[in-house]
Amino acid sequence: MKLFFSPTSPYVKKVLICADELGLSDKIELLPAKASPVLRDQSIVAKNPLGKVPTLLTDEGVALFDSRVICEYLNDIADADLFPKDKRAKWNAIAMQALGDGLLDAALLARYESFLRPQEFLWKDWETGQIDKVKSCLADFENNTSKDSVFHIGHITLACGLAYLDLRFDYLDWRASHPKLKFWFEEISKRKSFAKEWSLKE
Amino acid sequence: MKLFFSPTSPYVKKVLICADELGLSDKIELLPAKASPVLRDQSIVAKNPLGKVPTLLTDEGVALFDSRVICEYLNDIADADLFPKDKRAKWNAIAMQALGDGLLDAALLARYESFLRPQEFLWKDWETGQIDKVKSCLADFENNTSKDSVFHIGHITLACGLAYLDLRFDYLDWRASHPKLKFWFEEISKRKSFAKEWSLKE
Repeated sequence: MKLFFSPTSPYVKKVLICADELGLSDKIELLPAKASPVLRDQSIVAKNPLGKVPTLLTDEGVALFDSRVICEYLNDIADADLFPKDKRAKWNAIAMQALGDGLLDAALLARYESFLRPQEFLWKDWETGQIDKVKSCLADFENNTSKDSVFHIGHITLACGLAYLDLRFDYLDWRASHPKLKFWFEEISKRKSFAKEWSLKE
Repeated sequence: MKLFFSPTSPYVKKVLICADELGLSDKIELLPAKASPVLRDQSIVAKNPLGKVPTLLTDEGVALFDSRVICEYLNDIADADLFPKDKRAKWNAIAMQALGDGLLDAALLARYESFLRPQEFLWKDWETGQIDKVKSCLADFENNTSKDSVFHIGHITLACGLAYLDLRFDYLDWRASHPKLKFWFEEISKRKSFAKEWSLKE
């Protein structure tokens, strides 16, 4: 399989952690990508009209995206339980994934607003609205995330969300006001898949 | 069940069509909502930190979102096949759903740029980038959508995408350059679930 890769995309990270947890990372070749909402990468667009990373090319030549679809596909071919087979457990896992993806979507929109958009077009209310979403998500995760449930796609997504806040939103200092989440993230970061680093071959 | 409702949200429409196809629409009570990225609806935020529609409250009091999670939940409780049980068919369906959601995400961002954001902060390159995504998706759907495959969540999503373009992007005149998609949409629009209209009780 081949994966359009960006070293800083939290959604690419989510897919790669998922693949590593499933024992599939050696089967995925990383492809260079320069995806941006305003300068579209035509090598990706040729496979995925949205021109986004992550995009996976399966061994059968099918292009799969977005991260949710890729992760579920990888889980299926590994016949694993990151998407639990029990329905109630699955709803819980995919709901947590949706909240984590929502945190990331909001964080990315805030990032595009403050770093991609020319300064003169910055609309502070938009950025504030997105950051408010991030904060509401953090408060919810603080109250509802426990480390003792079975490991699943929701946990991977949340961890990628927190790692992205560390990368781009240092100023939020999320650990200071979320002690349970801080502890949870420390624990989950010990997993081999989270410690691993990915890069393109030279 | 209860669903935070907006009459113009394409994602709410997707959930309601899904529910109707599954014979579940009579079991869903619609709740008023005023979700906006900059003025967050606190009645939704109390249940869903992202403050977005659609948000479903199950009979057990669990809040589920986003549209993908809600549709899969409804499909599961109806024990139906809008998310096919066969894995290969499911990958195909959820990949098509992801492309349709991607079209909608891009269309909504373009809409926010041109109608929600104050004119002086409009960044044309951003709007153009999003509309380019919509056009790439349409071209892909034109080449790859056939009406003879089994009906699934991907078809519902695409139809909601096209209906949203009719509602907000008249100027794109998508039918003119996508004759196969135009025919496909005419056919699928004949389904009872697509013709139905939803509104809040007085």
